[in-house]
Amino acid sequence: MTDPVLDHLRADGGILARLKAYASLPSVSTDPAYAEGMASTRALLKARLANIGFTRVDEIEAGGHPAVVAEWMGAEGAPTYLVYGHYDVQPPDPLELWHSAPFEPEVRDGRLYGRGVSDDKGPVSIALEVLAAFLAVEGRLPVNVRILLEGEEEIGSRTLARMCERHRDRLAADAVISADGARWRADLPTVNVGTRGNAGYEVTLRTAGKDLHSGRYGGAVPNALAEMARLLATLHDADGRIAVAGFHDDVREASAEERAAFAALPFDEAAWLAGIGAEAHGEPGFTTLERLWVRPTVELNGLWGGYTGPGGKTVIPCEAHAKITTRLVPNQDPARTGALLEAHLRAHAPPFAEVTVVDQDRGSAAYEVPPDHPLLAAVERAIGETYGTRPARVKVGATLPLAAIFKQALGVDTVTMSFSTADEDFHAPNEFFRLAALEEGLEAWTRLLRILGGQAT
Amino acid sequence: MTDPVLDHLRADGGILARLKAYASLPSVSTDPAYAEGMASTRALLKARLANIGFTRVDEIEAGGHPAVVAEWMGAEGAPTYLVYGHYDVQPPDPLELWHSAPFEPEVRDGRLYGRGVSDDKGPVSIALEVLAAFLAVEGRLPVNVRILLEGEEEIGSRTLARMCERHRDRLAADAVISADGARWRADLPTVNVGTRGNAGYEVTLRTAGKDLHSGRYGGAVPNALAEMARLLATLHDADGRIAVAGFHDDVREASAEERAAFAALPFDEAAWLAGIGAEAHGEPGFTTLERLWVRPTVELNGLWGGYTGPGGKTVIPCEAHAKITTRLVPNQDPARTGALLEAHLRAHAPPFAEVTVVDQDRGSAAYEVPPDHPLLAAVERAIGETYGTRPARVKVGATLPLAAIFKQALGVDTVTMSFSTADEDFHAPNEFFRLAALEEGLEAWTRLLRILGGQAT
Repeated sequence: MTDPVLDHLRADGGILARLKAYASLPSVSTDPAYAEGMASTRALLKARLANIGFTRVDEIEAGGHPAVVAEWMGAEGAPTYLVYGHYDVQPPDPLELWHSAPFEPEVRDGRLYGRGVSDDKGPVSIALEVLAAFLAVEGRLPVNVRILLEGEEEIGSRTLARMCERHRDRLAADAVISADGARWRADLPTVNVGTRGNAGYEVTLRTAGKDLHSGRYGGAVPNALAEMARLLATLHDADGRIAVAGFHDDVREASAEERAAFAALPFDEAAWLAGIGAEAHGEPGFTTLERLWVRPTVELNGLWGGYTGPGGKTVIPCEAHAKITTRLVPNQDPARTGALLEAHLRAHAPPFAEVTVVDQDRGSAAYEVPPDHPLLAAVERAIGETYGTRPARVKVGATLPLAAIFKQALGVDTVTMSFSTADEDFHAPNEFFRLAALEEGLEAWTRLLRILGGQAT
Repeated sequence: MTDPVLDHLRADGGILARLKAYASLPSVSTDPAYAEGMASTRALLKARLANIGFTRVDEIEAGGHPAVVAEWMGAEGAPTYLVYGHYDVQPPDPLELWHSAPFEPEVRDGRLYGRGVSDDKGPVSIALEVLAAFLAVEGRLPVNVRILLEGEEEIGSRTLARMCERHRDRLAADAVISADGARWRADLPTVNVGTRGNAGYEVTLRTAGKDLHSGRYGGAVPNALAEMARLLATLHDADGRIAVAGFHDDVREASAEERAAFAALPFDEAAWLAGIGAEAHGEPGFTTLERLWVRPTVELNGLWGGYTGPGGKTVIPCEAHAKITTRLVPNQDPARTGALLEAHLRAHAPPFAEVTVVDQDRGSAAYEVPPDHPLLAAVERAIGETYGTRPARVKVGATLPLAAIFKQALGVDTVTMSFSTADEDFHAPNEFFRLAALEEGLEAWTRLLRILGGQAT
């Protein structure tokens, strides 16, 4: 590709240095000890945005960490896109497992290592560098662009919905381009077109007023752990299908075309399973990719009760606890599936047991890009031209609440344009970002802006 | 009752003071920090035994805490009884819940408070005081008596079996009278004629090589917690009966007479259940007392896996753990029931799961006094005459390994002659011993020795 903006980017020797400076700031949102790192990161972003020509550079907040916003609205008559990213990162612990200091980014073997380089300071830097290059080379962007860089993605985007409601004017756009997200695999050009929703619950089952001695009471009173095991065993049928009445009622079944497209994807299931030491398992009648992408789940994340230390203790526990999350697919409402789950647990618990179900969050609905959305088409074209092959549409089993939040609060869709890859150890020690993806991303974003502005041929 | 020995005991103002001195020594066996308390307790007991006229006063051991032994063998032609007790106590923690210092015994409201006063320094003191009084008043005992005061009862009588084997000559007797044990209730004269056995296991179920993200893998791989719940749910049928194949094969069914005797006991089941905040539950076709005393159990004591801290973590755990104990009734062999349990768990686990079962101990068989044993008849008569009413035969759902150990290692039976009561908070803060039981115990032990020596009319 020959393009004056891309030429400018390719000649710019400062891109990696700026990314390193950005990633060297410890913007850990979950730990108040990093408040200064959060503030200095916002300051760096605001200075950069003002410097490259954005206006209304500001911080907005709704009770949590502020987000950085800015805009360039000089493309009269053109659509407006909200470019989303986050400047917060996961804690660097455990520090002893890092081969280089987490906040002193270091290049080794074509990869940049450091906390946040993949999630998502690298991907966000691509977008900012491309926008800067357009303004530097051409003095304008092909479309109007608003920027939202939030500081709470790693803590569940707690105040993002409220922020959208409070600052609707600063975020108004025709669609959202998310620099956050992750490519499925480094070896396959793909576009993510949907994520599952989720919702978490904590269940407590109580069978007596106190713990009891297993010799003095055993056999004549209920055991909370045994009752919890029996109860949890009712959540799926013998084949692995969710047995909660009504849970599948609203599930939008994948179309024959969608299933055929998934089946056509190059996916080495045996290698995937070998890598995690597990066998395929799950709802009958669906492939592994379908189970991951378009079927809901009810999973136990934690289970505990009684004595769990070394040796034994002859106790009959009066209480048992479980943490459960559901993953939801399009059309499922977290409030409804949560009510169905709770009703199931109550209906299947023995009459003598007291069952408490606490919602751990309000839940997120699944999100799906409308398959004919023009932004999706533009992103597919940009990626396809960059890699020389049409990207495959894939889904993501995990949950990115932001797309559902933007849809609900701002009424607009989100397409992901991320250049991090799912294997880059984000949230873990030795997070890295492929420098090849940095180059590919600069080209793809340049192409995308040209396409969106009607400047691509 | 008029008896010169009992008159001597009633006139002796030093009994409570000696018990307090004994209970003020911190003989905690589980914590090496109390080694000095253990040693000084043995020294006190040896001095006392020598002082009252016992011979071969000694310490014997088999790799753990030594036991104190002694004997008086001057009753030529008479049978020999081994009087059993233990000098070790449970740790006093949590200290802040005690109303008086645990090792500064204090009388309040007709009760002596202190660690070990009920379990079992009070009950052992009764036996020693009665033996001392016989020797002081009459210069002899009605029968031959050996004494064994072990130091490891509170840590499972770990070396008792080996000690019996190594020191068979010091412990040889026609039967064992245990000063340890506990009366069922303070308001009902009873004799314990049997205890359930027990055995403990730790089960681990593994379904993958590592924990997995519930979004990126959920629905397509097994969940160790869900599989563990399903597996544990198979241990009992829907009615609460143990569903492990063969588990009941060797169970000796209670006779119609035994069941009728249990049914005739004054037992306020509703009050008992209300006290623990539980409803009756268990194997159909049996009463609560039968379930507690003559039916086996499989109980979950602990269950854990995955994330159990505050909030949520979207993990699919690869491992789940459970602690299980079985309580066994006469004729059941812990080795066989353990093998059946393990076979059940392996047979009911899904083929993709790896199941590990670790025995936490070798297990103890149930113990039952032969219903026509002469020592049992003597103890029943002594208690009956003391309380003015024939004692009821009861069983104990819990496990006292010593009787099974003595039966196997020494070939003799054990009858319990204890004056602690099950409600006296042993193993808990504010352990106490009823002073009324002290007086009753002195009379009953005096009567018992007269009966055993053929001196009772």
